[in-house]
Amino acid sequence: MLTITLSRPERLNAVDGEVTEEMLDVLHGLMRDEATGVVVLTGEGRGFCSGMDLQGGDPGSGDEGRVQRIYRGIARGGEVTARLREIPQPVIAALHGPVAGMGVAWALACDLRVADPTTRFVLPFTDLGLSAGDCGLSWLLPRLVGPARAAELGYRAQRLDVARADALGLVTEITEEGGDLAGARALAAELLTKSPYGLRRTKELLNASLDAPGLRRQLAMETGVQTLAFFTEDLAEGMTARLRKRPPEFKNR
Amino acid sequence: MLTITLSRPERLNAVDGEVTEEMLDVLHGLMRDEATGVVVLTGEGRGFCSGMDLQGGDPGSGDEGRVQRIYRGIARGGEVTARLREIPQPVIAALHGPVAGMGVAWALACDLRVADPTTRFVLPFTDLGLSAGDCGLSWLLPRLVGPARAAELGYRAQRLDVARADALGLVTEITEEGGDLAGARALAAELLTKSPYGLRRTKELLNASLDAPGLRRQLAMETGVQTLAFFTEDLAEGMTARLRKRPPEFKNR
Amino acid sequence: MLTITLSRPERLNAVDGEVTEEMLDVLHGLMRDEATGVVVLTGEGRGFCSGMDLQGGDPGSGDEGRVQRIYRGIARGGEVTARLREIPQPVIAALHGPVAGMGVAWALACDLRVADPTTRFVLPFTDLGLSAGDCGLSWLLPRLVGPARAAELGYRAQRLDVARADALGLVTEITEEGGDLAGARALAAELLTKSPYGLRRTKELLNASLDAPGLRRQLAMETGVQTLAFFTEDLAEGMTARLRKRPPEFKNR
Repeated sequence: MLTITLSRPERLNAVDGEVTEEMLDVLHGLMRDEATGVVVLTGEGRGFCSGMDLQGGDPGSGDEGRVQRIYRGIARGGEVTARLREIPQPVIAALHGPVAGMGVAWALACDLRVADPTTRFVLPFTDLGLSAGDCGLSWLLPRLVGPARAAELGYRAQRLDVARADALGLVTEITEEGGDLAGARALAAELLTKSPYGLRRTKELLNASLDAPGLRRQLAMETGVQTLAFFTEDLAEGMTARLRKRPPEFKNR
Repeated sequence: MLTITLSRPERLNAVDGEVTEEMLDVLHGLMRDEATGVVVLTGEGRGFCSGMDLQGGDPGSGDEGRVQRIYRGIARGGEVTARLREIPQPVIAALHGPVAGMGVAWALACDLRVADPTTRFVLPFTDLGLSAGDCGLSWLLPRLVGPARAAELGYRAQRLDVARADALGLVTEITEEGGDLAGARALAAELLTKSPYGLRRTKELLNASLDAPGLRRQLAMETGVQTLAFFTEDLAEGMTARLRKRPPEFKNR
Repeated sequence: MLTITLSRPERLNAVDGEVTEEMLDVLHGLMRDEATGVVVLTGEGRGFCSGMDLQGGDPGSGDEGRVQRIYRGIARGGEVTARLREIPQPVIAALHGPVAGMGVAWALACDLRVADPTTRFVLPFTDLGLSAGDCGLSWLLPRLVGPARAAELGYRAQRLDVARADALGLVTEITEEGGDLAGARALAAELLTKSPYGLRRTKELLNASLDAPGLRRQLAMETGVQTLAFFTEDLAEGMTARLRKRPPEFKNR
C-alpha cells in the first residue's frame, strides 16, 4: 500500500506546478510497480486540496508565454486525472475538509472515496469566470452523477456536503471526523486480501468500458483477460480457499 | 433571460408543425444570441405539453406523401431536442400538469427542470402502437435514469408523478403548486450572476462528454477552453470578488 | 410468453458448456420468432444460477487445449449476454437465492428483474483470482450502477442483498418469498398488452443508444422507426382505444 499525501498545508494543498510534476513522477513509477497493490491519496492538514495555485512554483516555466504556461498547468493537472485512472492499482481517496476545483477532478478520478464529515466538494468555476470543464471534471461528473445533476452542480457552482455527496453516490464510506485516512487504509487493507490480478484487470476493464461503449468489443477484451486468470497459481489458491472455507492467500503468481 | 412559452392551451400545448418550426426559429436565433444568458421553457395553461399533434397545422406540408409528412414531423421534433442541447444558453424547463410524449423528450433535453406538484411525465408510446424511441427520448432516458429504469418506463408506458421523477433525479427543484415558472425564473436569475463564459462552456463540454466517451479527447477540449478563460476580464473580476468576499459582477468580456 | 429455465438444480444451476449451447440455441430461435412477445428467464430450485461450472459437460471440447477450452467457455457465456440484449423480445429475469458469477452478467443483461427477498447477487471474482470483467459484467455494471459503485462491487467481491440491489436500481419489483416467477409472469403479461412493434423497437433503440453515444445518430434511427409505426394497423387501434378510453388490443400488424 502506498499513501500519496498532498503536502502544502499552509496553502490548503493548493496544486502548483511542482506538486503536479511530483504527482506525475509518482504515478509514472506506479505504472510499472508490481509490489504496490493499492494506493491511498490524501491531503495534509485541514483539507484535501483547494485547487490549482497559479501563483505557486513551476519547474518548467522558463521564458514561456502566459498562454503556454496556463495551458500547460491545466493540461498537466488533467494528465494527473488520466494517470490516476490508468495506473493499474485501485486508488482510494481519503477526504476531509475542502475538496475544491482541480481537487474535485483528482478526487473523482480515484476509484473509491472515503470521507470524513468535514468533507465538502466545492465547484467554484462559474463563480470565478471559469467553466466546470476542468482537468477531466466534465467527463467524470456526468458519468458519476448523471448529466442532469452534473449540469446543476457545474452551472450553480455548488458546494456538496458529505450527506449530499453520499446521496449522489460519490462516497464509498463516511467515517467519524478525522477518520478518513484510517478508513481509507482499512479499505485498502481489505483490497490487499483480494487477487492482485483480479483487482488490476477489473480496474482496467471498467475504465475500458467507459471509453469504448460497444458491448461486443468489451466482451472480446474480457474474454482474453479472464482466460488468462485460469493459468495463474492464484486461481487455484482462490478456488481451494473457497472449497475449504478459509480466506485465500494470493501471491500475485 | 428569455422565456419560451408553448402556447396552444386549448390543446394542452400539443405540438403541431407550426409550433415546431417556430421553436426552431427561436432556437436558431439563440445560437448567435450573446445577450441572452439563460432560457426558460414553459407551457401555457394547465399542462406543459401533451405531445405531438398530427392533426395540427403544418406550414411545409404542400403535396407531400404521408410517409414524408410524418417522417418530417418526427425528425423536426427531434431537431428541437438536439437544438435545446446545442444552443449555448442553459435551458430550464418550468413544468406543471402533463408532460407527455414528445413533450417528455423536450423537457428532458433541457439542462434543468423545475416542477410543480401537478407535474406528471407520461410515456404513452407502447400503449399507442409506438416505440419510446421518440425525438431523442431513447438517447436521453438511459443517460438520465440508467438503462434498467429507461426500459421499465418505456416498456410499461409509465406515468411518473413528481415524487418518482424526483427520486429518479429528473427534477432539479419542486415548487409549490403553480410556482414552477416563478421557480424557474429564480433559478435562471441565479445562473445570470454566474460567468457567461463559464456557463456556456460548461454546457458545451458536458454535452461533448456524453457524445464522445474518451477521457483523453475530453481533456484536450477542456484544456483549450479553460486556458482561454484566463484571458478574459471576467476571470480577474471573479478572482477579485472571491478575495474581497463580495459577489462577482461579470460582463461577458 | 416463453419461460427459459436454467435447470441443473443439483448444482444450483451452474452453467456448463451444454447449458450455454442450449441457451444459445433458444436465443437464436427467438431472433426470428414473431410469436413470442416477452421472455422470462429463471432458475429451477433454490437459486437462479451459481456461475460457470468448468467441471460440467461440454459438447464441443474434443481434443482442444486448455486455453482454447476456457476461452471458448467464457466467450460463449458472453455471447449469451450479448444475445439476451439482441433478441427483439424484452427479457424479464425471475430471481431468487444466489445469482452468482456469470449468473450476475446474465441477470443484468435482462431488461427487467423481478426478485424475491432471498435473492443475493454475488460477485466473487477478486476472491477467486478472477477479474469482474466476466461475460459482459464490466460493461453492464458501470452503466447500471455508475462507475464508482461498479468499482466498489467488483474490487470488494461484494454480495448484494435485495435491499441494496434495489437501492442501486437493479431490481424492477420485489415479490414475496417464492413469488419471483409469478411476479415476472405477471409483468410479462402486462407487457403483452402493449404494442409488440413498440416493445421491440424500444428495446432495439435503447440498446443502440448505449452502444453509439451520439444524439444525432440516435435521432436518425428513431425517426425511421417511429415513422414506420404510423403505417401499422396497431397504431390506429392504439389511438382509437385511447379516445374511447378502453384498453387497446394489438395484433402485431
